[in-house]
Amino acid sequence: MARLSMRTGDLHASPVRDMLNVAMRPEVISFAGGLPAAETFAGLDVPTAPRELLQYGPTEGEPELRARIAEELSGLGIDASPERVLVLSGSQQGIDLAAKLVVDAGAGVAVEEPAYLAALQVFRFFGAQFSGLDRADPARGWDQAPPRLAYVTPTFQNPTGICWTAEERQALAGACDRHDVILFEDDPYRDLAYEACERRPAVASCERASWIYQGSFSKTVAPGLRLGFLAASEDLFTYLVRLKQAADLHTNRLSQWMVLQYLNAPDRAQRMGRVTAFYRERRDTFDRALHRHLGGLADWTAPAGGLFFWVTLRGGIDAQALLNKALERNVLFTPGGHFMAQGGASASIRLNFSLAAPDDAERGLRILGELLREAAA
Amino acid sequence: MARLSMRTGDLHASPVRDMLNVAMRPEVISFAGGLPAAETFAGLDVPTAPRELLQYGPTEGEPELRARIAEELSGLGIDASPERVLVLSGSQQGIDLAAKLVVDAGAGVAVEEPAYLAALQVFRFFGAQFSGLDRADPARGWDQAPPRLAYVTPTFQNPTGICWTAEERQALAGACDRHDVILFEDDPYRDLAYEACERRPAVASCERASWIYQGSFSKTVAPGLRLGFLAASEDLFTYLVRLKQAADLHTNRLSQWMVLQYLNAPDRAQRMGRVTAFYRERRDTFDRALHRHLGGLADWTAPAGGLFFWVTLRGGIDAQALLNKALERNVLFTPGGHFMAQGGASASIRLNFSLAAPDDAERGLRILGELLREAAA
Repeated sequence: MARLSMRTGDLHASPVRDMLNVAMRPEVISFAGGLPAAETFAGLDVPTAPRELLQYGPTEGEPELRARIAEELSGLGIDASPERVLVLSGSQQGIDLAAKLVVDAGAGVAVEEPAYLAALQVFRFFGAQFSGLDRADPARGWDQAPPRLAYVTPTFQNPTGICWTAEERQALAGACDRHDVILFEDDPYRDLAYEACERRPAVASCERASWIYQGSFSKTVAPGLRLGFLAASEDLFTYLVRLKQAADLHTNRLSQWMVLQYLNAPDRAQRMGRVTAFYRERRDTFDRALHRHLGGLADWTAPAGGLFFWVTLRGGIDAQALLNKALERNVLFTPGGHFMAQGGASASIRLNFSLAAPDDAERGLRILGELLREAAA
Repeated sequence: MARLSMRTGDLHASPVRDMLNVAMRPEVISFAGGLPAAETFAGLDVPTAPRELLQYGPTEGEPELRARIAEELSGLGIDASPERVLVLSGSQQGIDLAAKLVVDAGAGVAVEEPAYLAALQVFRFFGAQFSGLDRADPARGWDQAPPRLAYVTPTFQNPTGICWTAEERQALAGACDRHDVILFEDDPYRDLAYEACERRPAVASCERASWIYQGSFSKTVAPGLRLGFLAASEDLFTYLVRLKQAADLHTNRLSQWMVLQYLNAPDRAQRMGRVTAFYRERRDTFDRALHRHLGGLADWTAPAGGLFFWVTLRGGIDAQALLNKALERNVLFTPGGHFMAQGGASASIRLNFSLAAPDDAERGLRILGELLREAAA
């Protein structure tokens, strides 16, 4: 019997993984994942990629790409020169690197409740002790027991779709500074904004001490390329580069080149405008279907950005029981409990609105409505 | 002052990383890295890649690619169905995943001395307690204190170029079986064979208990694509998939598609024949230059495969001092001490022969010869 690391005990059967396998069946309508719509992807224009990309490249990433990302970040007020930008093999990798750097057994990690489940899994694997982070009072409890890390997705959060106000962002940055808490801002949905939002500065732009800010091209270019990036304060950056080198040497260079072409394209703003218009319409269609089928059975707020509706079921309906029924009818969603760091119950479910075509969404939500009415009866 | 994980203490200044930065300067002749020659890379033929590759894909990898890899593995006698093949973002990632699964503070890891330095760094980061692995007597000491993991690169090892005999492979597999030691066979150089070698079955093909076998396309297709794979025994495989998902969700799909084209190309065997012929000639040219410039000053055996000469300096010359002198003259190599798990001294240096063009290799080795003569004087 092979002996494994102590951490392996936390690698329990993953209900999420099993669900992904179900979601891939063609007969299934999936609201469960976070898949963008293929209609929004940039093209596969690679025939002219330079041959030198086939060789090993720098761990930090391609210099031209790092410089372009640094420009974008400075537009957000983030203090990141190209020398402090690290290209990632998707922003999931940034979570792994940050956890390695900061989290070991018993380390305090403050997270929103609910929070991105695949981040929770990584922090838990490395031994995190979670505490809840209240955006109205982020430093609550930190006088007694400050966490090492505060992990937030303040812009169109996964799963809730919430966007923090400028004041809330400022308050979190100040709290992190005062209590020596490392800020980890995960910002993959920033560009998927469907309303004229209030100003939403990066939390990291208000932060003076130790911070990591990361973003993704999965939602604005294409997820199959696995490309993301992070920037970090000087005290953390060199460590993160070493951890990146140990993890995969460097990120695929062809993806980096393709994303650079996208960032430099003269029609980039128009393309992004088309992407957000596409998703705005999909969100609105989904919202209307929700009203038709779940009206009076659940509560939600249409998100101003991102890819998810966070829908709270009325009448104490058990989300996991609902999922089991829905699966029998080939409809999939993610129960809210998966997003609770401390294992608390949740009366909510997360519905992805970006992937399913309008007809499928209509059909899937009609089924959910029927099941909710049955359960309520 | 940010608080970091206990492991971070091991992320000390990396002399190797600093050297890589030097190696990229155009005026430098580098024997230090393990870069393949760009002349050997497969092409960048991607214009016809299917657009569906832009979407998220399965964590395990593309089904067609996994099936092709499983075929190759069964040709090596390894018991791996497609369902037990995991596509990696380069084989460095497999080391990270295996370490996460098996190694925590104080876990015993048996390694060759010397061994691949970037594997040592990862195992060390997770808290490995190293012991030496003698291929003539692999189970020595295991009755008292069996390690959890035995990590080996038995085919054209990095750094020594050694290829284990069939008997040695069989003995290691048996020892792992008897002592419940997980075998981790890292096999990136298998296809870079320049001599009619004796049979070299994968150690994993002799293993009945817990094993991980991994390979790379960095040396046979192109490293910039970051593509490798692993197969593992059933007790380990599911864990490794979960760890892969937590690390980067899945590997770049375009790279997977490109490598699949390469594996299916009708002229694959001929292309691989050209690659090995190219390297055989480069090795022989390098060997002749070594004789010209280091003859009488050092000892070495021309490797039957792989990318490195392991050169042992005579007369107690200090390799690090030699490197400092060489750097002043823009010549770079890797001192043997970097490859010693337990920090022991080494009178050897590792010279990569694949990257430098013959004229540069000649010039660089002449300089090394001059410096060795100066040091001996």
